[in-house]
Amino acid sequence: MTFLRNCWYLAGWSNEISGDQPLARRILDEAVVMFRDESGVVVALHDRCPHRFAPLSFGRVEGGVLHCGYHGLAFDAAGQCVENPHGPIVKSLCVRSYPVREAYRGIWIWMGDPALADDALIPQLHFFADVPDTAFSCGYIKGDANYLLFVDNILDLTHTDYLHPDTLGGGSYTRNRAKVTDHGRTVSLHWHCWNEVPQPVMRINGFTADRADSWTEIEWTVPSIMMLRNGAVPAGTPREDGKSFLVAHIMTPETSDTTHYFFAATRDFDRDDADLNARIAANRAAIFTKEDKPMIEAQQKRMEGKDFWALDPVLLRSDEGAVRIRRKVDEMILEENAGR
Amino acid sequence: MTFLRNCWYLAGWSNEISGDQPLARRILDEAVVMFRDESGVVVALHDRCPHRFAPLSFGRVEGGVLHCGYHGLAFDAAGQCVENPHGPIVKSLCVRSYPVREAYRGIWIWMGDPALADDALIPQLHFFADVPDTAFSCGYIKGDANYLLFVDNILDLTHTDYLHPDTLGGGSYTRNRAKVTDHGRTVSLHWHCWNEVPQPVMRINGFTADRADSWTEIEWTVPSIMMLRNGAVPAGTPREDGKSFLVAHIMTPETSDTTHYFFAATRDFDRDDADLNARIAANRAAIFTKEDKPMIEAQQKRMEGKDFWALDPVLLRSDEGAVRIRRKVDEMILEENAGR
Amino acid sequence: MTFLRNCWYLAGWSNEISGDQPLARRILDEAVVMFRDESGVVVALHDRCPHRFAPLSFGRVEGGVLHCGYHGLAFDAAGQCVENPHGPIVKSLCVRSYPVREAYRGIWIWMGDPALADDALIPQLHFFADVPDTAFSCGYIKGDANYLLFVDNILDLTHTDYLHPDTLGGGSYTRNRAKVTDHGRTVSLHWHCWNEVPQPVMRINGFTADRADSWTEIEWTVPSIMMLRNGAVPAGTPREDGKSFLVAHIMTPETSDTTHYFFAATRDFDRDDADLNARIAANRAAIFTKEDKPMIEAQQKRMEGKDFWALDPVLLRSDEGAVRIRRKVDEMILEENAGR
Repeated sequence: MTFLRNCWYLAGWSNEISGDQPLARRILDEAVVMFRDESGVVVALHDRCPHRFAPLSFGRVEGGVLHCGYHGLAFDAAGQCVENPHGPIVKSLCVRSYPVREAYRGIWIWMGDPALADDALIPQLHFFADVPDTAFSCGYIKGDANYLLFVDNILDLTHTDYLHPDTLGGGSYTRNRAKVTDHGRTVSLHWHCWNEVPQPVMRINGFTADRADSWTEIEWTVPSIMMLRNGAVPAGTPREDGKSFLVAHIMTPETSDTTHYFFAATRDFDRDDADLNARIAANRAAIFTKEDKPMIEAQQKRMEGKDFWALDPVLLRSDEGAVRIRRKVDEMILEENAGR
Repeated sequence: MTFLRNCWYLAGWSNEISGDQPLARRILDEAVVMFRDESGVVVALHDRCPHRFAPLSFGRVEGGVLHCGYHGLAFDAAGQCVENPHGPIVKSLCVRSYPVREAYRGIWIWMGDPALADDALIPQLHFFADVPDTAFSCGYIKGDANYLLFVDNILDLTHTDYLHPDTLGGGSYTRNRAKVTDHGRTVSLHWHCWNEVPQPVMRINGFTADRADSWTEIEWTVPSIMMLRNGAVPAGTPREDGKSFLVAHIMTPETSDTTHYFFAATRDFDRDDADLNARIAANRAAIFTKEDKPMIEAQQKRMEGKDFWALDPVLLRSDEGAVRIRRKVDEMILEENAGR
Repeated sequence: MTFLRNCWYLAGWSNEISGDQPLARRILDEAVVMFRDESGVVVALHDRCPHRFAPLSFGRVEGGVLHCGYHGLAFDAAGQCVENPHGPIVKSLCVRSYPVREAYRGIWIWMGDPALADDALIPQLHFFADVPDTAFSCGYIKGDANYLLFVDNILDLTHTDYLHPDTLGGGSYTRNRAKVTDHGRTVSLHWHCWNEVPQPVMRINGFTADRADSWTEIEWTVPSIMMLRNGAVPAGTPREDGKSFLVAHIMTPETSDTTHYFFAATRDFDRDDADLNARIAANRAAIFTKEDKPMIEAQQKRMEGKDFWALDPVLLRSDEGAVRIRRKVDEMILEENAGR
């Protein structure tokens, strides 16, 4: 499978990388190792020693450089060998280094041409950084399916009406078509569901009115970063009076068939309530782990190694956003490869 | 691997399919889902939603139609979409439907051309249906080997003398050649072992004479259905005085390397004895699980992915039935594919 | 992967083969079964019955011949069928037999042309046989990596300075270059480390001097047999006054990606001390299992199915022995295949 390379992928959460233990993570089917140099800046290298191909991640960070645990070669942030106990440092003693940025509690990696790595393209996820810990939760799950199946899942929220009928569902996503707007490197999907039966989860969260006006606004950003803002008010009430959530779903391909799924969430109410924060996070993780993940992994299996389009999927109205984005990503990959 | 398609395969036992939970089973390397429509008739569909390829078996039966658990599309017995919550029901919203018949406590599926599905070809297994529960047992095991290795196992019962020396063996199958008769879509193998040492299992079952006249008569039916009638009397006694068993061994290919093994048994004596029934069933299952299954799965592994004939097996006298049937199945497959 | 075939591989320890249970072991990606004939001589056959491909190792040794557990065919040391309960013994009823020798507590197998099997090429490992049990230990580990990665590990002992810093390491292998001498079918590597900091393991073993003169002399023999003699004395003391160890590391390819790793050890001091013997053996096994094996298996994974040379390894001074031996083995394989 070909991936889009000239873009930022979330490689991990900031707090996953510290101390003398490097972090190994496969990204776009390449073995990557991450660690912090002496000034704390995150570094990403190809996780394979050029000498005997031992994973550098089996080694140890010391003095801000990564020492191979097998024969002691050490590599700096540029991937250059800076210590060879067995002789001179020849030019070939180096590994690929990937551009990395740390921003918004996350580690962003550029798997394409380093010359094109553009900080302006890092997704603007200020909420990750700007909210108190009592109103922030984040997590990571490894999913055994292609990342675009995970993206589809978020971009077609009608699935909540069938897969999560007792929590996020209720029928309003299905009854109300999303408005899809293409902005180039971002695409927005807006569901505005006026005068609807409240979702079960709203009842659980204390919403008592019989009818609700609710909104869910997703902004997808290249390649597979989604911000989702949703909230509700009693039907007919101004939106400003409602409580709302801001949730990020970020998919980074591990291989063609497996995905690093990062998620984070905040809210605009009761931001000091750590208990509430924990409860919401646990509920969200349970729904995803027990309902979405098994279904998406089953989709992957049922495709039996075939290409998505080759299987000739029937397109529904609710696929509008997901299909637009699949096509956009396909085109960008074609362009990227044509430019090579 | 190519399978014979225009024939009935046993897809499951009747009591495996009920309620709102569909049953998923891979047959001839195709994902099949089975459920009952409103009148209780069993339906078999391709277990893959045409929309996003979710397994329909992850969904739910309601009102006799199968609802996909991901986005709510519903499919009827013909595989036609009858409910699309997201827009009109377009023609392409359908899945393959397989002819299915319920007969003799079993579900029979036709994986080939539906126009050729012929009820007259359903194996006549009246005993499944006609005996009291206290004289009937049936079971299912998934075996990790090609179905024809399981068929070979039944058709060459000399193996019992070596693989089951303390129960079914004793040497009489080896000392007495089976008479093989080809009837076209059925082949019979008859072992008549006069004046032999009784099999150990007969001693366990209370047979006290020193010498036995015993018979084992197998009828194989296309593609891999075997009825086995066997019994014994003290040597020289009329066969009519003996007790006999009727056992069915039915193999349905799951994939080229794995098999659904269905078995069922009855007897013509002590038919009200539920304890005896349970004891016999448990013994049979133990022998198969601990002795046959490991050997057959080891054969499969030792073939290391190569074709049976390509490995140039040495043929013995005792292979006569099994080889005739392998060749017959090969020819029928060739014919079937030539006719396409 | 192509292996060198005309040479002796260690197939097992003598005490692994006894009684009526044959031993199955995959060697050079071929299924081999070993047992003893009536006079106790070890026999190695292809572990696949020519009749129906059941593993002969599922059978039983009786009267010095191996009886297939499925249909009772029996095979002798030459692989010839000597018992067919189902008819005449036809010529095709035979399996490949491999030349085998039992020597030095080990079973040696020749996977190539039997006509070339030359006893003189059996590695001279007298110490295996000549030492008391209280000064001998041996073991077996299955490793999930190509055998040459295990060979590399032994031939570049600088790895001990980084992978085993608290036991075998200490820096002296890295600071002192090994002298490599090519003798054709054997290659020797000698590290002589004068006036060095003692290795941590020497401290554990009671060495008290501040500085040590130590030596490690490896003799590699085709294809992957390594004898390692090492010892130490307080710096400046005659070598004859020191205690020394003799250790064998013997790698036999199971498949291209997995290895049978046999090891054995003795020492020239306290040879009656069974406790010491057990302690040393346990330490050695722990180091190998917890430190070497995971690293080597990680190397194998990181190579992602690619050929060692195709990955363009950077060669260091410390690779001299390992690289020479890899090239020698490559050349011998080319020669062997050219000669076919």
